[in-house]
Amino acid sequence: MAAKEPPAQSGDRPVLGIGMVGYAFMGAAHSQGWRTVGRAFDLPLRPALAAVCGRDAAAVRAAADQHGWAAAETDWRELIARDDVQLVDICTPGDSHAEIAIAALEAGKHVLCEKPLANSVAEAEAMAAAAERARARGQVAMVGFNYRRVPAMAYARRLVAEGRLGALRHVRVCYLQDWLVDPDFPLTWRLEREHAGSGALGDLGAHIVDLAQHVAGERLVGVSALSETFVRERPRLVGAPAGPAAASSMGADPAGGGPAAESGAGAGLPAAGGAGRGPVTVDDAVVFTGRLASGALASFEATRMAAGRKNALRLELNGERGSLAFDLERLNELFFHDHTEPAASAGFRRVLVTEPDHPYLEGWWPPGHALGYEHTFAHQARDLVLAVAAGTEPSPSFADGLQVQRVLAAVERSAADHAAYTPTDGQAPTDVPPAAGPVPPSLTTTPPPSPPPPPPSSAVTA
Amino acid sequence: MAAKEPPAQSGDRPVLGIGMVGYAFMGAAHSQGWRTVGRAFDLPLRPALAAVCGRDAAAVRAAADQHGWAAAETDWRELIARDDVQLVDICTPGDSHAEIAIAALEAGKHVLCEKPLANSVAEAEAMAAAAERARARGQVAMVGFNYRRVPAMAYARRLVAEGRLGALRHVRVCYLQDWLVDPDFPLTWRLEREHAGSGALGDLGAHIVDLAQHVAGERLVGVSALSETFVRERPRLVGAPAGPAAASSMGADPAGGGPAAESGAGAGLPAAGGAGRGPVTVDDAVVFTGRLASGALASFEATRMAAGRKNALRLELNGERGSLAFDLERLNELFFHDHTEPAASAGFRRVLVTEPDHPYLEGWWPPGHALGYEHTFAHQARDLVLAVAAGTEPSPSFADGLQVQRVLAAVERSAADHAAYTPTDGQAPTDVPPAAGPVPPSLTTTPPPSPPPPPPSSAVTA
Amino acid sequence: MAAKEPPAQSGDRPVLGIGMVGYAFMGAAHSQGWRTVGRAFDLPLRPALAAVCGRDAAAVRAAADQHGWAAAETDWRELIARDDVQLVDICTPGDSHAEIAIAALEAGKHVLCEKPLANSVAEAEAMAAAAERARARGQVAMVGFNYRRVPAMAYARRLVAEGRLGALRHVRVCYLQDWLVDPDFPLTWRLEREHAGSGALGDLGAHIVDLAQHVAGERLVGVSALSETFVRERPRLVGAPAGPAAASSMGADPAGGGPAAESGAGAGLPAAGGAGRGPVTVDDAVVFTGRLASGALASFEATRMAAGRKNALRLELNGERGSLAFDLERLNELFFHDHTEPAASAGFRRVLVTEPDHPYLEGWWPPGHALGYEHTFAHQARDLVLAVAAGTEPSPSFADGLQVQRVLAAVERSAADHAAYTPTDGQAPTDVPPAAGPVPPSLTTTPPPSPPPPPPSSAVTA
Amino acid sequence: MAAKEPPAQSGDRPVLGIGMVGYAFMGAAHSQGWRTVGRAFDLPLRPALAAVCGRDAAAVRAAADQHGWAAAETDWRELIARDDVQLVDICTPGDSHAEIAIAALEAGKHVLCEKPLANSVAEAEAMAAAAERARARGQVAMVGFNYRRVPAMAYARRLVAEGRLGALRHVRVCYLQDWLVDPDFPLTWRLEREHAGSGALGDLGAHIVDLAQHVAGERLVGVSALSETFVRERPRLVGAPAGPAAASSMGADPAGGGPAAESGAGAGLPAAGGAGRGPVTVDDAVVFTGRLASGALASFEATRMAAGRKNALRLELNGERGSLAFDLERLNELFFHDHTEPAASAGFRRVLVTEPDHPYLEGWWPPGHALGYEHTFAHQARDLVLAVAAGTEPSPSFADGLQVQRVLAAVERSAADHAAYTPTDGQAPTDVPPAAGPVPPSLTTTPPPSPPPPPPSSAVTA
Repeated sequence: MAAKEPPAQSGDRPVLGIGMVGYAFMGAAHSQGWRTVGRAFDLPLRPALAAVCGRDAAAVRAAADQHGWAAAETDWRELIARDDVQLVDICTPGDSHAEIAIAALEAGKHVLCEKPLANSVAEAEAMAAAAERARARGQVAMVGFNYRRVPAMAYARRLVAEGRLGALRHVRVCYLQDWLVDPDFPLTWRLEREHAGSGALGDLGAHIVDLAQHVAGERLVGVSALSETFVRERPRLVGAPAGPAAASSMGADPAGGGPAAESGAGAGLPAAGGAGRGPVTVDDAVVFTGRLASGALASFEATRMAAGRKNALRLELNGERGSLAFDLERLNELFFHDHTEPAASAGFRRVLVTEPDHPYLEGWWPPGHALGYEHTFAHQARDLVLAVAAGTEPSPSFADGLQVQRVLAAVERSAADHAAYTPTDGQAPTDVPPAAGPVPPSLTTTPPPSPPPPPPSSAVTA
Repeated sequence: MAAKEPPAQSGDRPVLGIGMVGYAFMGAAHSQGWRTVGRAFDLPLRPALAAVCGRDAAAVRAAADQHGWAAAETDWRELIARDDVQLVDICTPGDSHAEIAIAALEAGKHVLCEKPLANSVAEAEAMAAAAERARARGQVAMVGFNYRRVPAMAYARRLVAEGRLGALRHVRVCYLQDWLVDPDFPLTWRLEREHAGSGALGDLGAHIVDLAQHVAGERLVGVSALSETFVRERPRLVGAPAGPAAASSMGADPAGGGPAAESGAGAGLPAAGGAGRGPVTVDDAVVFTGRLASGALASFEATRMAAGRKNALRLELNGERGSLAFDLERLNELFFHDHTEPAASAGFRRVLVTEPDHPYLEGWWPPGHALGYEHTFAHQARDLVLAVAAGTEPSPSFADGLQVQRVLAAVERSAADHAAYTPTDGQAPTDVPPAAGPVPPSLTTTPPPSPPPPPPSSAVTA
Repeated sequence: MAAKEPPAQSGDRPVLGIGMVGYAFMGAAHSQGWRTVGRAFDLPLRPALAAVCGRDAAAVRAAADQHGWAAAETDWRELIARDDVQLVDICTPGDSHAEIAIAALEAGKHVLCEKPLANSVAEAEAMAAAAERARARGQVAMVGFNYRRVPAMAYARRLVAEGRLGALRHVRVCYLQDWLVDPDFPLTWRLEREHAGSGALGDLGAHIVDLAQHVAGERLVGVSALSETFVRERPRLVGAPAGPAAASSMGADPAGGGPAAESGAGAGLPAAGGAGRGPVTVDDAVVFTGRLASGALASFEATRMAAGRKNALRLELNGERGSLAFDLERLNELFFHDHTEPAASAGFRRVLVTEPDHPYLEGWWPPGHALGYEHTFAHQARDLVLAVAAGTEPSPSFADGLQVQRVLAAVERSAADHAAYTPTDGQAPTDVPPAAGPVPPSLTTTPPPSPPPPPPSSAVTA
Repeated sequence: MAAKEPPAQSGDRPVLGIGMVGYAFMGAAHSQGWRTVGRAFDLPLRPALAAVCGRDAAAVRAAADQHGWAAAETDWRELIARDDVQLVDICTPGDSHAEIAIAALEAGKHVLCEKPLANSVAEAEAMAAAAERARARGQVAMVGFNYRRVPAMAYARRLVAEGRLGALRHVRVCYLQDWLVDPDFPLTWRLEREHAGSGALGDLGAHIVDLAQHVAGERLVGVSALSETFVRERPRLVGAPAGPAAASSMGADPAGGGPAAESGAGAGLPAAGGAGRGPVTVDDAVVFTGRLASGALASFEATRMAAGRKNALRLELNGERGSLAFDLERLNELFFHDHTEPAASAGFRRVLVTEPDHPYLEGWWPPGHALGYEHTFAHQARDLVLAVAAGTEPSPSFADGLQVQRVLAAVERSAADHAAYTPTDGQAPTDVPPAAGPVPPSLTTTPPPSPPPPPPSSAVTA
């Protein structure tokens, strides 16, 4: 926000009217992003917080007032229909994404949709198709994988793209939280398959699949998974509706959440006495391994049961020329090892990603002044506004979101099929070639040739 | 910002009109704080960004537009006179603080003044006296020691106040930056005594003196100091006025700065060729030791010459029952050692200060979601608005700022007098009792009794 | 070594004569352990370095002199036959373990055998059977999983056994090295299946399987694995024999190695020109997931291709009441999170495992004085001597080593069978029950009941 | 110990007979060093543990047996007189150093003396003079500043000497322990001035003064100090003699100690009831600042009252081209920042100082295999044996030890004189030039010119 060069009078710039559906945790974070982006960055369009939508009229009115939205709506179809809304920002649970997003695109609006894109591959396919059609009309559609916009992650991707890591050998990612450790944490909608789609997998796993592919610049081709629900019954909520269909919980959202996020959803209280316990129908945790297109080995873990880990999204990449490591709990830091240096003075260096030439830092503070979680939403808004203004495909697109959805589906299929290695492109597991690598001669056939590293131009997204 | 309970309609609340003087680094940070505070916290008054002031009409107009101020002024006296301004926020260099603050207070306005309070003890005394008079009229005046509002620091103070550390033995603080390492970094106003007052001492040292006293809950009674200017001449700026009197640099400000901060001041470029070099008249670095009221030993260091350290404000306290450690480059973390535990399982624990019951966290995100530097300004605004509404003395008050100024002056006197131990209350160094502790019998007289620890009620500020 | 209480005259104690086979990296480490153990610990027997064995007479004579062995032998059968040898310590590559160990046991000697116990399950079964027979005659046999004797790991096991972690949810272990990153690192015996058995799996994976089970106090019941050989051909060694059958490389050994370890094996130099490249027939890396007996999810990774990671054996356990984390590169530290504390002051605490009441610390220095890698061999020697003197089963026994071998074999089978979940007890993969946890209703049958946590008495080893 | 090249038959090499005085903590550590050095390093002389000395015949006999000394003596004069002793290793408290060392040197023996060299400058001067005379006769004398031999510190010195840091700006060192936090820790000889000379200053401060100068390659020219004894009375020991004159406590030693070290001294128990408390006559803690010859600012802290810090010797150097940071609690790691790199990818890198070309690593294990505290004694023994064999001056020499002693004396004088800046060369404080740097014009005269950086050849020691 250091006004190096006063921008042209932003008051003269065209307005981009935003309409947001949902107003809980994600809604608050997106609101902060939209309010701030034009202050920090010099944009060709001026985002305006036109209207917010939720089913409970009083609550949405209060949320509009708190977060700075000019109007409130109680029907998302009305929101989409507003003339002052050019971009629809969807912050609801996953089971409503497809319907809202497709309607908005068909109404000619740009769309930002929270992750995961949908609760099923079929929904995601319909959304990607709608985005493709809208793209031809000049509309843009983006998925809210906001962690791509942590400056350290954007810088990590740059280092990989510049070849500083060389051929990749390993990708190692986990996303550890602990808000389900307590067996008496109540049965919210996030723990019900019909509303949330899946548990840690869709909530946390979607983030790390996208982020790992984004930073690595290549995609997972197959996975092998185990998943678990450690606490199979939890106290039912009393005085709260069962799912997100209820008014106030429209505001609930599927981002990496936890207790505080839930409390924004008018979640009620755990049942005392007679209400009893109900079944948890999603996973508490999932671990999976896989291979990237280049042949690199990958390991993933997503859990809500890692006591003491609050938001530990950790990523490490090892390549022939260098390595990178990151922990979201220290989001201003990136650890980089340059393996081409003399061994005596080499080591993982802690780069404080707050320098002027780091991604997104032109908008912020002097070196060493930390950014936080919410900045990712301002960065996401920046990139989306630039895409709208330029008429270019945003990243991650709905097609990218669909690809992540396919990976998640492959993880679920593998977990249901004795961890069998499962391709991410929808083929049946039986079509998979045998695992590469050293196996006893009696058990293996000719090993497949090691795939060549992808050319730089094969990056996942622009 | 997780709207646990929708606040009452904030639109109905009384407005508190803010008028800000200066609009560079600190101005941008304060603007973000004022814009955000009412979104994150449920406040009795609604802050409104009424007007911003700077001498260059076009530049201040652009800044108003960028940062969201409703109006722009070019004369701070006009700003103070505005009816829609009830609180004047001073973000200018130190040499203008006294004049503006006193005028604002005398005009009946509340005041927030950036640190250090002034460039001299005399100015600070006049300001504290003005604040005292205004206090009787119901006005409030606060100094911008924003690092008190890092949640980890507010929580550290709470732990100390609760007795978790017991009698203090050591306070160890440094503030390390590196933006002057390059000998060709130009001669900005921050390096000129007549404008900046001092160098690292006033800029960084003021922060750590205040913060250490605030967390420890007690004050420095004497100091011994060495200071140094390693690079005594630097390239003059070409095409830029010499000091902050120039229009655009009114916006410059004295907060923990660095290159990016300077660039907001329309700083021009280092001279090539004939313009040559000019003398640096402030310190690059200062190291000092001291004693707290309880007898604890303290050590301080403030420098702009620590290569690789960007914003390393590090603080450690050791007490009879426990210890605390902190690093501003990892501002969401506080390290706490409980010395009353069995040794086998004891150790510094890393507390992620993002839990709902940590200070200020009621306004933000779920556990583990990092806050950043700028949040301290929203927290500062929150506490100031609450003080205005309640009519209570804010903390840190101008009296607190004056006390810090006296410590800085004692540091300068000691540095000029062979590091002689110098009391912080303005007495002459010769009045100092001999250093306590073990000295050869031939050199010492009866050691002074160890002072008793202060009662809990003797905390520096409320 | 702080002589708190001078022990009884150790000169009067019975001697335990040691005969060691192999004298390279592991031989040097074991020698240091045997020389030191009686100085640091008060033992009932006095270990004496009786004789060392290798095939090259001059080289073994030099090694004996360097490492302090009284005699040298060139035939291990002669070593076993010596009257002054009561314990045979086997530090050779895995393909000779079975023959030497069984002969030594049948000759009435105690045995310490480096890990992994053998190169196949069949060999390990024969060895365990021989140990069982010898046990009836009062002999003891131990496998050299020395990392169990890192004080932090022994203390971690104690914390788990005391219930400080509660029911386990996750075990997360990796062992990362980088000495194969360079594609021109030569083709040593460690990269040839016929001598080494496997690659990273047997060398590093064996350590982490044993260590994870030991600390967790329970065993893996099934695994799913992917493995890879990234560099499939490497330069042949010139002027060096092909395998460990050559004299000097008898001293080579299978412990967590790297370049320096190789150089002790008289390894020759990579071929220039005509000698060309030969095939690597073991894995460079393996990743696998699994389930423990209690139902906890586990993930493992062993690799020699993680640029910048030198000896990063990292282990984390998450339970319902707490968590533990460890990194062998910082082996004096254990991180412990107590989840039963108030969230506001909870966090992973860094315990410096150098206190007098930490395991093995009675033999060493004051708190805070670091131990190193080689201390694990003194600790191993201590525990083995105590077992010999008391006639009790040492831990890890050959039966424990066999169980690890079965896990490694299951990993290899799974890697060869599309990562299919494979039980560790030798059953065919098709007998595996479907993966527990949340899968789409159409894909799953009734989920198996979550297994109860094992009673504390079910610990793997004493 | 990896036997890369089997050394020549060490059995044929000349023996260097060692005689050690004292056998507690330091005696145990030195014994381990002497036993191990010839196993790890290829030396021209073979150190033999000839005899150990203490006043209690039974205890010294037991110590000899435990630590591997061939003979035991009860009078150090007898030890010196032995024909099989060529080098006398002094591990007693400081008050006996001068007498023993001078006698040994005059008897024609080489000497290794624990730090600090003496309890006073006068003693140290006599010792340095004796060493100078002995030097002419081909004898060598070394002071036991073992931390110079931590590989990371030796490597740090190399980086500085190579110019990787450029002109130094800051040296920041502390040595934090916590064994006196408990006010009921008893009154051992270490807390009595007549035996220990000083408290934290001589014990810990001596280490950091020497280490900082050694790594920086330049010396302190002046200091300003505060010291404190927080707990002025402690329980007297019952059933133990008052000082180290008693037989068993001859074995006590002055190295960075703590509770466990004390217990080796036959320390008795704190008094219950009538015995009461006695005065502590040394410092618990000292903080001091200073200037190096090049003009760099330095800050030091030594304390036994930092709860939770066990052996935290921390050192940071900042120069114009780079920085270094180190913590003895993680002694295998050195953090290095190269300030000549592009800011975007620069940062402190963690170098694991275990590579083959790091200092002393030729004797040990593959990369990543940690060394510990005691290795420093083997390294010290190595360098001393090489100096004996080559007839060269060892480092640190007694002259170096004397210089450190002068710094400590200047610290004590400053602490007794209101922290007045005190030169380290023995001049009176009044001769000190005014502090350099920026002071108000009215208070200062012409600032002294910044001293030029010393030429590389001006390194403190070879």
